[in-house]
Amino acid sequence: VVGLAKGAAMIAPNMATMLAVVMTDAAVAPEAAQALLAEVVGRTFNRITVDGHASTNDTVLLLAGGAAGPVAPAALHDAVASVCAALARSIPADGEGATRLVEVVVRGAATEADAERHARRIAESPLVKTAIAGGDPNWGRIVSAAGASGAPFDPARASLRLQGTTVWSAGTPVPFAEAPLSARMRDEEIVAIDLDLGVGEAEARFWTCDLTEAYVRLNADYRT
Amino acid sequence: VVGLAKGAAMIAPNMATMLAVVMTDAAVAPEAAQALLAEVVGRTFNRITVDGHASTNDTVLLLAGGAAGPVAPAALHDAVASVCAALARSIPADGEGATRLVEVVVRGAATEADAERHARRIAESPLVKTAIAGGDPNWGRIVSAAGASGAPFDPARASLRLQGTTVWSAGTPVPFAEAPLSARMRDEEIVAIDLDLGVGEAEARFWTCDLTEAYVRLNADYRT
Repeated sequence: VVGLAKGAAMIAPNMATMLAVVMTDAAVAPEAAQALLAEVVGRTFNRITVDGHASTNDTVLLLAGGAAGPVAPAALHDAVASVCAALARSIPADGEGATRLVEVVVRGAATEADAERHARRIAESPLVKTAIAGGDPNWGRIVSAAGASGAPFDPARASLRLQGTTVWSAGTPVPFAEAPLSARMRDEEIVAIDLDLGVGEAEARFWTCDLTEAYVRLNADYRT
Repeated sequence: VVGLAKGAAMIAPNMATMLAVVMTDAAVAPEAAQALLAEVVGRTFNRITVDGHASTNDTVLLLAGGAAGPVAPAALHDAVASVCAALARSIPADGEGATRLVEVVVRGAATEADAERHARRIAESPLVKTAIAGGDPNWGRIVSAAGASGAPFDPARASLRLQGTTVWSAGTPVPFAEAPLSARMRDEEIVAIDLDLGVGEAEARFWTCDLTEAYVRLNADYRT
């Protein structure tokens, strides 16, 4: 399974200018391929954002040539999911003006839909995205974004880690050394936001990028 | 009726750092005052955005001293609504890094809730807000934001005006002189986005500001 994708702005796909093609030599029936792709896209391409502005024509195509013959569905699923996740992450990593890729994980949710709602709200917040541009371990912006997502959120049960360091727990900030954490947010390959809701077993992953002055320049100066 | 308000960021109020106090010398019962204020706030303070990031503690208080004695409810309503609308507009006008106030009107909707959903989506789009920073009459960004709001949207029946000039109608761009319109977007007191859905009588007004490099600087450099 191999894949290709383009898109760096007007990115908040809901299979609406993002374009991706995934190819496999597995033999797979069209209906099964469509079902597989829809499920994987829901957890990969539809879980990225650059600017929260869905395009009118995002497209992911899965092409199956069949030369390899039938493949175990679970093996094909895992291969397609792996390729789609790698492509999806690469889009915000290459987002307009972006200097950092951010992975938001919301875990401990009652349902995956709740986790996704929190993760999307965090990933779309300009205040969270500018804090990351500044290397600011600003837990308040992250927690307040989640709190406004509309999905259930009990601060008393929740905790937040940045780059693996707990910065907020049970509704209260946890003391941490700011300078080293800020340095890690700037230097490590990915900014990792990990919010545990503490109420269940479901989780969702979402990918975004920082919001920089370069993003504004590109989009204020670009005329169509 | 007089009022005061503060707040320039973390502004997407849902009566969650915005603070406003409205005072009147009308004699009005607490229950009537609360009902009046809730209705007016729903159409004024809850219809502004700077960054789409709701604060945890927006507050609007209506204080009624009673010295003026009883007042006709309609007259009090209009006075409170007028004060709240003026205060609400002044917040994004004074938003972080903002150079322009934007008024989004969505009309011709089946319901006010539909109109509000479209207006909020347009007002929160970073692509729309950067286009305004650049004086770009970019109808595509506006129409595509509305189309992704989730509320009913039929391009064949809709039309869009910028500063009163029709730029898009029935799903098709309408030729216009770009340079003068761009100049008016930069020079006039307010950027007026007016989307007519063409399906009903309901409308909603929403206020936002442009998204500039100064916004990013303020929020990437500000540490908490």
